[in-house]
Amino acid sequence: MQTLAQLAQIIGAELIGDPQAVVHRAQSFAQAGAGDITFAADARYRARINESRATAIVVAEAVADARPNLLVARNPKLAFARAIHALHRQAYQPLGVSADLVVGEGTTLGEDLSVHPRVTVGRHCRIGNRVTLHPGVVIGDECYVGDDTVIYANVAVYARTEIGSRVRIHAGTVIGADGFGFVPDEEGHQVKLLQLGRVRIEDDCEVGANCAIDRGGFEDTVLRRGVKLDNLIQVGHNCELGEDTVVAAQTGFSGGTKVGRGCVIAGQVGTQQHITIGDGAVVMGQAGVTKSVRAGAVVGGTVPAQDYNAWRRRHAVYSRLPELADRVKQLEKIIRAAGLQADSQQDDDAE
Amino acid sequence: MQTLAQLAQIIGAELIGDPQAVVHRAQSFAQAGAGDITFAADARYRARINESRATAIVVAEAVADARPNLLVARNPKLAFARAIHALHRQAYQPLGVSADLVVGEGTTLGEDLSVHPRVTVGRHCRIGNRVTLHPGVVIGDECYVGDDTVIYANVAVYARTEIGSRVRIHAGTVIGADGFGFVPDEEGHQVKLLQLGRVRIEDDCEVGANCAIDRGGFEDTVLRRGVKLDNLIQVGHNCELGEDTVVAAQTGFSGGTKVGRGCVIAGQVGTQQHITIGDGAVVMGQAGVTKSVRAGAVVGGTVPAQDYNAWRRRHAVYSRLPELADRVKQLEKIIRAAGLQADSQQDDDAE
Amino acid sequence: MQTLAQLAQIIGAELIGDPQAVVHRAQSFAQAGAGDITFAADARYRARINESRATAIVVAEAVADARPNLLVARNPKLAFARAIHALHRQAYQPLGVSADLVVGEGTTLGEDLSVHPRVTVGRHCRIGNRVTLHPGVVIGDECYVGDDTVIYANVAVYARTEIGSRVRIHAGTVIGADGFGFVPDEEGHQVKLLQLGRVRIEDDCEVGANCAIDRGGFEDTVLRRGVKLDNLIQVGHNCELGEDTVVAAQTGFSGGTKVGRGCVIAGQVGTQQHITIGDGAVVMGQAGVTKSVRAGAVVGGTVPAQDYNAWRRRHAVYSRLPELADRVKQLEKIIRAAGLQADSQQDDDAE
Repeated sequence: MQTLAQLAQIIGAELIGDPQAVVHRAQSFAQAGAGDITFAADARYRARINESRATAIVVAEAVADARPNLLVARNPKLAFARAIHALHRQAYQPLGVSADLVVGEGTTLGEDLSVHPRVTVGRHCRIGNRVTLHPGVVIGDECYVGDDTVIYANVAVYARTEIGSRVRIHAGTVIGADGFGFVPDEEGHQVKLLQLGRVRIEDDCEVGANCAIDRGGFEDTVLRRGVKLDNLIQVGHNCELGEDTVVAAQTGFSGGTKVGRGCVIAGQVGTQQHITIGDGAVVMGQAGVTKSVRAGAVVGGTVPAQDYNAWRRRHAVYSRLPELADRVKQLEKIIRAAGLQADSQQDDDAE
Repeated sequence: MQTLAQLAQIIGAELIGDPQAVVHRAQSFAQAGAGDITFAADARYRARINESRATAIVVAEAVADARPNLLVARNPKLAFARAIHALHRQAYQPLGVSADLVVGEGTTLGEDLSVHPRVTVGRHCRIGNRVTLHPGVVIGDECYVGDDTVIYANVAVYARTEIGSRVRIHAGTVIGADGFGFVPDEEGHQVKLLQLGRVRIEDDCEVGANCAIDRGGFEDTVLRRGVKLDNLIQVGHNCELGEDTVVAAQTGFSGGTKVGRGCVIAGQVGTQQHITIGDGAVVMGQAGVTKSVRAGAVVGGTVPAQDYNAWRRRHAVYSRLPELADRVKQLEKIIRAAGLQADSQQDDDAE
Repeated sequence: MQTLAQLAQIIGAELIGDPQAVVHRAQSFAQAGAGDITFAADARYRARINESRATAIVVAEAVADARPNLLVARNPKLAFARAIHALHRQAYQPLGVSADLVVGEGTTLGEDLSVHPRVTVGRHCRIGNRVTLHPGVVIGDECYVGDDTVIYANVAVYARTEIGSRVRIHAGTVIGADGFGFVPDEEGHQVKLLQLGRVRIEDDCEVGANCAIDRGGFEDTVLRRGVKLDNLIQVGHNCELGEDTVVAAQTGFSGGTKVGRGCVIAGQVGTQQHITIGDGAVVMGQAGVTKSVRAGAVVGGTVPAQDYNAWRRRHAVYSRLPELADRVKQLEKIIRAAGLQADSQQDDDAE
């Protein structure tokens, strides 16, 4: 529960309305009622502000004659995210360590842990303070888990993985399985390239459910500080994802892909091995990135991924291909009817 | 074991043959032998009916001089599905509740359960009658699981999830992890939009292995009655999938996608956020659905998904693009040879 | 630790250098130092050989005036893979069987096992010798697991699965869940086709993390000897993958796909049901394979997959579509300016 005066200060917004009004809950625009704060995402929502029964609405700019209280913020989505935190983030309460914890020799456990039943931790690990391990978590030997990290149910962490502080790893994810490296022998049988590297996940990362992040071949696979991965994502061996990069579901990074900081990678994207995606680049959904992408570029359009604007121009013509083919056919008829023919001496001209 | 007279009645087919003949087993056309019932999927199989040693064959129409007994059904695949059930569905036998069940306070358990070893159920849950929980299942606090539901090994269900009756959830699936919502702050760090909604799975749904179904942001992510999901599917926050819709493997629904009832979504499909797919629509494999799809439409063709017939026409021209380019080049040569030039005054004509 | 004389013999290379020099470790080219062996993958690396501080480098051909010792091998990547094995493969050490193993009646366990805590094995299984089962592994009734096989954490194996010898199955993978088969009834409700087949994984296969390999409808889903799957792969019911075939991450095989031996299937590929991919075929990333592919073919290019060279030619024109459309427009202007018209009698000519 917050007064709007408090909340305005916390989220960095200007209040237009009653500073003593109280909100208990954040809600969607459609569902918000008395006691709720919500968010007008754009002009369409701002136009409907007086339809809302919300106590307060976060907006990008003031709206004349608004009935609800307004919290005006330059970046209203960010301000609303902070309002949700202020109202709903629950203080950490340590549950203690379940008596059935299986833990290997030489492992040290931090303070104020929440280790649920049925957790298995290997030998020579170091588990930080206030770490939460949900049921079924399996952590291999020689792993490190930083303070305040939460690992959800049935996550498997292979040996020698490093996970930073304030990391969240959602259920079913596998970290540190072998990278995929094989070479056929003389008889066509696949010989494994043993995978000797590790996975390192830096502070403040979040990894979705049922992802797979492979260990490196020799060097490490690295998620830099603040990387956010959605569900069912593949991160191949020796990838490096830059700080604050976000990746939507079902994207796959082939081995050795280097992604810069602050990139936005949409869903179901695939990358060729060993390419680089520059800082701040945007890759649209389902793009197959076959070449390196320069910083700040926007690429899209299945495989191969292309400059997004070039792709749009191509796609516009592609959409009218049958008509284009008809026009060419019509030209051919006209030329034929006119009895025109190519000068045979020009036949070998380069275009 | 059924006599054909019994089976014909159960599956709603007309028997041509011996009503007292007995079948023990359903089998594929290639493998079926004496005592088996099989299925002639189409005219090619019907033409080979006398090659089969099966005791009975389900067909769409009578075949003259057939040696095996025939069960003629208007929808033979459906009739065969029912025959498989009649012969192979095993009656539920409760295994009881494993003594090692970890269960939180305030949770109520139904009757005739089959709770395998190593299951963990949180606080204030309600587990219905005849529920089967396989080893490694983890159910969070305040969940509801309806009667006759089966949850396979190592499924993780986050807190506050509702799962209906007669639902089947295959191994490794994660239900209720956080939706993927972040907004960059002033320094480019990603701030999480806390995910406060739930997942609700209605009666008679089936969810494949290693899927991820995220909880909603504020409101719920919903699978309506009878939805069937294959494996490795992503359902983003606030999606709603309509009754009886089927979805093939590795498809991903971005946040807020609304899919109607009776849709057929093929594999590796992706959807843009917040679009709607109308009732009965069909989306072909690997389509990237960037705009809403009207009811009954058929769309396909990578990204962006297109009306399937329009896509086929475009693709036909696309397949001959090198020839089309050659034809344009040839026309240019002819025009050049003829000394023709554009009227410069028309240069700015709109096409 | 190996002398170069020993290592040359083990990996089948010719040594140019000091036979008594000793290497302890394999490393990447960039990181290799004294005591390390590394690998010059191609001419670019060979040109930089004298920058390396490695003790030995595996190369495809001799390099004049090389400072490091050279191991010259016809297939240097294969030779290097063998060197990594020689230096880093750890001899198997049985850990024994955890006292908390839950095992059903009628199951037989081999010798020298490594069964970690929290493993569950069903009834009437047969577990071979030197098998490793990591924590959280769940094996259903009537399964077979061959000698020297390793199953990583939280893998779920459904009943009646057969897994050969020297197989590795990475964490979170699900083997033997029901294939995806439904048929709508008279009211549009989906009726399940019960899945009565099994999964059989032959010797020397490796399956990545969080894959899903479904059981067959009647007959079996089969991975032949030596198949290697990356992570997050879907293998539908009744698929058969041929010997030594490798498949990259996030690929999905629809039901009944038959893949030959020695194929290379890249990432995010999808296949239509019931198609065949011939021996030695190569499928490029993200291809949607809608028709059978002949042996030795190379196909690529989203959906539908096409002969790779044909696709390249089409894509080259596609990339210049806006220019092609402009050229057609220009031709139309010229024709208009010249006052030419089609002979109306030719209007119905077939192209």
